[in-house]
Amino acid sequence: MVDAVLARNTRVGAQLITRAESGTAAMRPVLQLLYKHGGGARVVGITGPPGSGKSTLVDQLIGWFRKRGLRIAVVAVDPSSPISGGALLGDRLRMSRHDGDPEVFIRSMATRGLLGGLSKAVGDAVTILDAMGWNVILIETVGVGQSEIDIVRHAACVVLLQTASSGDAVQMGKAGVLEIGDIFVVNKDDMSGSGRIVSALNEMLGRRIDHGEIGRWQPTVVRAEAITGKGVAEIAELIGRRFDYLADHPAAARAQKISQLHARAMEIAEQMIGARLCMEPGPGSSQAKLLVDVLERKEDPYAYAEALFHDRVENGARSST
Amino acid sequence: MVDAVLARNTRVGAQLITRAESGTAAMRPVLQLLYKHGGGARVVGITGPPGSGKSTLVDQLIGWFRKRGLRIAVVAVDPSSPISGGALLGDRLRMSRHDGDPEVFIRSMATRGLLGGLSKAVGDAVTILDAMGWNVILIETVGVGQSEIDIVRHAACVVLLQTASSGDAVQMGKAGVLEIGDIFVVNKDDMSGSGRIVSALNEMLGRRIDHGEIGRWQPTVVRAEAITGKGVAEIAELIGRRFDYLADHPAAARAQKISQLHARAMEIAEQMIGARLCMEPGPGSSQAKLLVDVLERKEDPYAYAEALFHDRVENGARSST
Repeated sequence: MVDAVLARNTRVGAQLITRAESGTAAMRPVLQLLYKHGGGARVVGITGPPGSGKSTLVDQLIGWFRKRGLRIAVVAVDPSSPISGGALLGDRLRMSRHDGDPEVFIRSMATRGLLGGLSKAVGDAVTILDAMGWNVILIETVGVGQSEIDIVRHAACVVLLQTASSGDAVQMGKAGVLEIGDIFVVNKDDMSGSGRIVSALNEMLGRRIDHGEIGRWQPTVVRAEAITGKGVAEIAELIGRRFDYLADHPAAARAQKISQLHARAMEIAEQMIGARLCMEPGPGSSQAKLLVDVLERKEDPYAYAEALFHDRVENGARSST
Repeated sequence: MVDAVLARNTRVGAQLITRAESGTAAMRPVLQLLYKHGGGARVVGITGPPGSGKSTLVDQLIGWFRKRGLRIAVVAVDPSSPISGGALLGDRLRMSRHDGDPEVFIRSMATRGLLGGLSKAVGDAVTILDAMGWNVILIETVGVGQSEIDIVRHAACVVLLQTASSGDAVQMGKAGVLEIGDIFVVNKDDMSGSGRIVSALNEMLGRRIDHGEIGRWQPTVVRAEAITGKGVAEIAELIGRRFDYLADHPAAARAQKISQLHARAMEIAEQMIGARLCMEPGPGSSQAKLLVDVLERKEDPYAYAEALFHDRVENGARSST
């Protein structure tokens, strides 16, 4: 299977991503081998609130990169229902104009409500796609918030979309994503209020730049209409410039990578631990009895958490070593 | 301090929330004691995308509950910058019309980028406020996504806001929050496209109800203009009806609580573990050397994650017991 992936067999690659999504421990040696063959891909995150046009921009960027002979993989992250577990196929359908192109690989991923699961699975998918030799890997994540910040940690370059309808500058600041963007796009630029968002973004970024060091990457705000193609070339060129910057600033690139690798290892460790913790206790167990005591306020959640940690992590670790 | 909190000293309560936010282990015995005095508050989550009018609705609900003599606490969650760590004060400022009312307590909380930190800290704040005897605790969370789903797990009733500008039905489904709402509000109902959102929501909820059991809580869609007060009484009455439902269906209420308590204990356990894992390794350490090997692709993130887990969780647990 590893050989098939290294030989760019997309069917096997897709199967491996599905297995990685399920979080099976059997994938570990495969991912370890593949990781050592990677490192060549340019990993780009595309994020922003629902309806900001991420899928349309991804579609345009695919076209732009394809014209330059680059092979593109897309990981479209759907933080869909933790209950139904089902991924909606909106993104996949909308990107169908590249469906027949063997140099384009599009994959939706959906959270299954696993502890630390989605971002870790995206990291695994990037490991697989990177080993397959795709030149560019686009990670598209819907929404804004902490989970999106976790997910774009797998990218060396983050494109953050906004529109005039995504809320005012205070709202954007609250969403906590301004600091993670390397390139800012105000999409649907024909909407009224678009100029106000551009000004607010430039003002907030100006403030950010003031606090920065000399030689630091300077984020740019691009006005775009992804649907017509307006701004797409500029965005693609800025993505290239971001990677040139990282090549020219090895210390900055290394610091970003070290921090991202540590975050990735934490996700992996969390999953190792979460797999032991997540099951609700079986009926009649001492843990179930303790949980009822917590419900009746004779005990408290901290005591129950310590019992879980002791029984399943410490003792679990001892019995497995 | 525990006595002061039980005597409803809001200054001490606010201080305890600040300490809980910092995640200090010294808070544990305090929270354990306070938890045993709680259980009386009605905990309501208000969530939705940025700009959907959550703060305005919270403000209106405070007014509605105050007229009925109820004492209200609000926890406004700002998933603000993981880098700057600063909370923006937009919500607090906008809710200033209740500032002088001693029966209203408003508190912003901001993520500090701690592992599992925000939702756990909100749970601690609820424990403190519940022990203080507030009748209603409103948790307002900005944004949509997995982190918001985690946060509203502290509430027995979740109000989900949407507006015509928050995106179409597919986008809402993708955001994965439909399943967590007990009451759906289409706010800013004067916007064009509002009726379409109401229809889409009703259609999606209809599908959800079809799969449900008899006697299950039936979510309702309310059209509102929080800014003018339209729909607010209906929302407040539905909140009351949700708690009546839980009182009338003890098995359903118990199942919800057990599941929420287990999730809360997992957050606590994760933080216990995360505190051991999150620090990047010191220069010269064997872990730092391994991380460089990962960077150079001689080793892989799984090997590094296992080393962290072994050195800091297993051995850390052994040396601390």
